[in-house]
Amino acid sequence: MSRFLKEQLKNLEPYVPGEQPKNPGLIKLNTNESPFPPAPGVLSVLNQEEGEKLRLYSDPAATELRRAAADYYGIPESRIMAGNGSDELLAFLFMAYGKRIYYPSISYGFYKVYGEIFAEEAMEIPLDEELRIRPEDYHGLPGTIILANPNAPTGSALTREEIKGILKANRDQLVVVDEAYVDFGAESMIPCMEEFDNLLVIQTLSKSRSLAGARVGLAMGREELIEDLNRIRFSFNPYNLNRLSILAGAAAFRDREYFKNCCRIIMANREQFVSELEKQGFRVLPSKANFVFAKPPAMGGEAYYQALRDRNILVRHFQHPSLSGFVRITIGTSEELNQILIANEEMGLQPVGKGEEA
Amino acid sequence: MSRFLKEQLKNLEPYVPGEQPKNPGLIKLNTNESPFPPAPGVLSVLNQEEGEKLRLYSDPAATELRRAAADYYGIPESRIMAGNGSDELLAFLFMAYGKRIYYPSISYGFYKVYGEIFAEEAMEIPLDEELRIRPEDYHGLPGTIILANPNAPTGSALTREEIKGILKANRDQLVVVDEAYVDFGAESMIPCMEEFDNLLVIQTLSKSRSLAGARVGLAMGREELIEDLNRIRFSFNPYNLNRLSILAGAAAFRDREYFKNCCRIIMANREQFVSELEKQGFRVLPSKANFVFAKPPAMGGEAYYQALRDRNILVRHFQHPSLSGFVRITIGTSEELNQILIANEEMGLQPVGKGEEA
Repeated sequence: MSRFLKEQLKNLEPYVPGEQPKNPGLIKLNTNESPFPPAPGVLSVLNQEEGEKLRLYSDPAATELRRAAADYYGIPESRIMAGNGSDELLAFLFMAYGKRIYYPSISYGFYKVYGEIFAEEAMEIPLDEELRIRPEDYHGLPGTIILANPNAPTGSALTREEIKGILKANRDQLVVVDEAYVDFGAESMIPCMEEFDNLLVIQTLSKSRSLAGARVGLAMGREELIEDLNRIRFSFNPYNLNRLSILAGAAAFRDREYFKNCCRIIMANREQFVSELEKQGFRVLPSKANFVFAKPPAMGGEAYYQALRDRNILVRHFQHPSLSGFVRITIGTSEELNQILIANEEMGLQPVGKGEEA
Repeated sequence: MSRFLKEQLKNLEPYVPGEQPKNPGLIKLNTNESPFPPAPGVLSVLNQEEGEKLRLYSDPAATELRRAAADYYGIPESRIMAGNGSDELLAFLFMAYGKRIYYPSISYGFYKVYGEIFAEEAMEIPLDEELRIRPEDYHGLPGTIILANPNAPTGSALTREEIKGILKANRDQLVVVDEAYVDFGAESMIPCMEEFDNLLVIQTLSKSRSLAGARVGLAMGREELIEDLNRIRFSFNPYNLNRLSILAGAAAFRDREYFKNCCRIIMANREQFVSELEKQGFRVLPSKANFVFAKPPAMGGEAYYQALRDRNILVRHFQHPSLSGFVRITIGTSEELNQILIANEEMGLQPVGKGEEA
């Protein structure tokens, strides 16, 4: 830290992203990336002609991407804004609406960081004993609400009706729904945009659209909200998306069949994997995401994380007391998931009461 | 604007970037892009293999890019941080160091916007009558200083010795030098990093390295400063660069010959163009950038801008009273510049006193 840094930033605790190690042969199931490459249309935009055009600035309105997303969701382009990943959009909205902000005590770890740096007051609302969000805890709150749906790292989802209840109970407060994982079985709030002027939906192309490395996120809501966020963006970084990511994101939205098929396979692999883990004695929270949050039998979460790591399998472990018994495992290919099941067998993991090895 | 937006943001005046019209045949000399495509090595990274890897997050340390830049400048990687364009880095540094911040009253328009949104106090220092920065005005200031060198939109540069004078006269204040245009004839401060712990250099790959559309900027300074900026970045958007831009930026740094050659041609075209403009009666400020700031004879800047626009040539005009007689013209290809000279002839522009048509 330099002697020039602003006083109030000296105690800031930045977010720690999942590790990005490069050792070959590693089975990387720690950051919820897709096991599938981007849609074929994405690959075709990486050509000589587009490469030469990199000399020119990108379209600050990201028109082609917004048009493709608008077409996919059947909403006007004017209700969509693009970000350099959804993280950038989350930061913008904390800047725009962070007077007082409420979010679940266990959720995407970045909310806490944004709260600290941008909000005047950030309030955490505890989960229930099953690590679920209780919708009624969010009724009638005097500030902006942000919820991840499905939530992370648990994978649990609220229903559309439950979120509508929150929107109705907070007509004069903004409710942000972060739908990073929504395409894996939860209900999107996008169809409710017409009914609620206090709804802002955030999505990412990093998970279900296999574009984590392109950094593309979307904010969707009524025109006034998009206008607010654009005010921030034009005061921060107007050319926030590079040319190739705009094209890649648009192509990913256009190929509906490829997208649906990837999501379908991931959900099927998840259900299969969960049932196998349960047979091995794991407690697995019900997941509507491309990951599962699982508690190994007779073994701490950190020890299990380390045991997998020793076998060249990387998953994610969290230190928070109510999470420390669990690990979060990305739904990779069925071959990758099978390697975990084999590792579990080698560790002697089995339902408690069935054996003593663990 | 929504009813949810924070009170203090309601009067924010966002930056207005140069127009990005798409009409074919337009000669676009308004945003200082390079007339040359990126280096051949850049084009070769846009391939199937890298496309498939877009499913994975990018390296949050942007190691390959930082390594290539470190190698080019002969400085340690630990003194370099990468941004999503230099705009993102400027925003970060205003957040980190914006207690009180000083910059020239005429400079990159974004400083004013960042000052408004992030700084506690932002102070503008006037230029002299020749639209130059007076270095002695920046001696002994009680706050962070930011200077564009060469300055925009004038193109005037301070010498390395003049900036060293400012660094010496402000040992306990941070001095930021924004070197967006430095490769076109000015002196970079990078070699002074060892001598001054209060120096932070910002560069962009948008101009001299033909990568405006890839959004890549660099901050360079002592480790403590880079650590400050990374604190902000990890509280904002850790994966701020996409995979392809990291690779493209690295490739651009590796091809030294291509880079030098592009800069050499642009500088030669600039000198030639300035001498022709002067023959036509223009007043042209001495430029060390890839643009010239030029005042047409017997015609206002806005009228001239419009007259060029009517001929499908786009340059930039600024409303500020002391700039309104001028236009800023990017040094494009010699063919493009020649079109301006022809247009000037058609408009009958010539040295005052030589004719009456203008």
